[in-house]
Amino acid sequence: MKKLEARNPKYKEYTELMISRNKFMQWMGFVITKIEPGYLEGELEFKEMHHQQNGWLHGGATSTILDMIEGFASYSLVEEGQKVFTVEAKISYFNPGTADKFYARGGVIKPGKRFHFCEAEVYYLKEGEEITVAKGSATMAVV
Amino acid sequence: MKKLEARNPKYKEYTELMISRNKFMQWMGFVITKIEPGYLEGELEFKEMHHQQNGWLHGGATSTILDMIEGFASYSLVEEGQKVFTVEAKISYFNPGTADKFYARGGVIKPGKRFHFCEAEVYYLKEGEEITVAKGSATMAVV
Amino acid sequence: MKKLEARNPKYKEYTELMISRNKFMQWMGFVITKIEPGYLEGELEFKEMHHQQNGWLHGGATSTILDMIEGFASYSLVEEGQKVFTVEAKISYFNPGTADKFYARGGVIKPGKRFHFCEAEVYYLKEGEEITVAKGSATMAVV
Amino acid sequence: MKKLEARNPKYKEYTELMISRNKFMQWMGFVITKIEPGYLEGELEFKEMHHQQNGWLHGGATSTILDMIEGFASYSLVEEGQKVFTVEAKISYFNPGTADKFYARGGVIKPGKRFHFCEAEVYYLKEGEEITVAKGSATMAVV
Repeated sequence: MKKLEARNPKYKEYTELMISRNKFMQWMGFVITKIEPGYLEGELEFKEMHHQQNGWLHGGATSTILDMIEGFASYSLVEEGQKVFTVEAKISYFNPGTADKFYARGGVIKPGKRFHFCEAEVYYLKEGEEITVAKGSATMAVV
Repeated sequence: MKKLEARNPKYKEYTELMISRNKFMQWMGFVITKIEPGYLEGELEFKEMHHQQNGWLHGGATSTILDMIEGFASYSLVEEGQKVFTVEAKISYFNPGTADKFYARGGVIKPGKRFHFCEAEVYYLKEGEEITVAKGSATMAVV
Repeated sequence: MKKLEARNPKYKEYTELMISRNKFMQWMGFVITKIEPGYLEGELEFKEMHHQQNGWLHGGATSTILDMIEGFASYSLVEEGQKVFTVEAKISYFNPGTADKFYARGGVIKPGKRFHFCEAEVYYLKEGEEITVAKGSATMAVV
Repeated sequence: MKKLEARNPKYKEYTELMISRNKFMQWMGFVITKIEPGYLEGELEFKEMHHQQNGWLHGGATSTILDMIEGFASYSLVEEGQKVFTVEAKISYFNPGTADKFYARGGVIKPGKRFHFCEAEVYYLKEGEEITVAKGSATMAVV
């Protein structure tokens, strides 16, 4: 992922403010661990509340994580006061999610004035190797 | 949506069993209100836990609802013992979600032995008119 | 598909002008047969040039048809002088395309000032019944 | 893109045979320049026949190129006699395509017995720098 530059010198505070207002993310326990211009990382401790019917990470939880990474990575690139909305998102499920902890990373791969194109992935570690649970792409509108 | 036929005479019980095992859906309070072969409806009472940063319905919650409708509509068409997995899903966000209650409906628009192609939408009612919050399409694998 | 209103009273002429400039569509022989505000229909006579490796309608040809329906349906809703660009598009392939003639229809399902959300499908007729080859959804930007 | 292994020792010949039968690709002049297990590259000389209404590379041509890279990269991983079909594909348009020549590359990012998940992109060179025209993701079924 190419290094991007933030237009807002206080991009980190602004992104953190938006994150702090996001209730659904807090309720499900997903935590952002790194904020760089256009790039974010996060973690989720896997609990029973995140299960789908087979005890794996729920696709809706996975979608939520990708949306948070992509959306807030976009927030880190906009000006103070601007807002970001998801226009559309696609997610592909590569492997079942079974782990104590899940990691996520990603961000803006093509910034623009009106849109940001984003990508992100959710993965876990198995004997040191990364297993990708899902990968997503999204279009974020800047308003 | 065309009327479809269930291969499993106990499709309703089987689908309900799968739904009962889905923890993330229960945790967020989404409830299935109708199960027909390849078609489902559901409802969500809007609470603070579903908010994104502007107080609207979170995209991750919306994605979860669509995934539940599409996934369990697919379960209603498979044989006893078969499983359904989301291969990929796309969601487009038409309008911000602000309402006391959200409704969802959708299901399988092209059934198959190996895949079901699905569509679903989330909407609310405003003075009797339906306002679509989001529409999604997904590919479900039957295993 | 809901009836939409054109902002440009000469929407038909403007859309036809744009269509007349589209070389790739002409080259492959796809013809628009109906233009209404936000809704289009078209036809393709199936020739050897449209084949993929099994002699079926090529996915790229199918994608092109959907893009034309969705893009020009969006053109029919904009003001004189405005342009439309595809932001992103998804296509799902339901059935192999084998027929003498293919039909397409679709358009804008959620119009907006900045975006139009569109859907379209390609189908053929077999003993009077419609067989859907592919269905697509797209986001069109209005500039 | 991770290095993958071909199950078919004659993967190159088998992929080339499939490519040789693909009429639409030949008609539009897209040429595959490299075949490795699960990874392909190709080129298109830009001609008037590829234009959309503004003289840029047509989205349908771009979609076709991505589908060829993703589809034949999947063919390079299957066994002799197996077939590959596009289940669904998404494409995001990053920049207008204006160049004498376009390049494409991509392939399978998550292989499987029943599906291959693929990604590919179309780009051109401007003073030595790569400008991405579009990026796509697709699900390919192996039959």
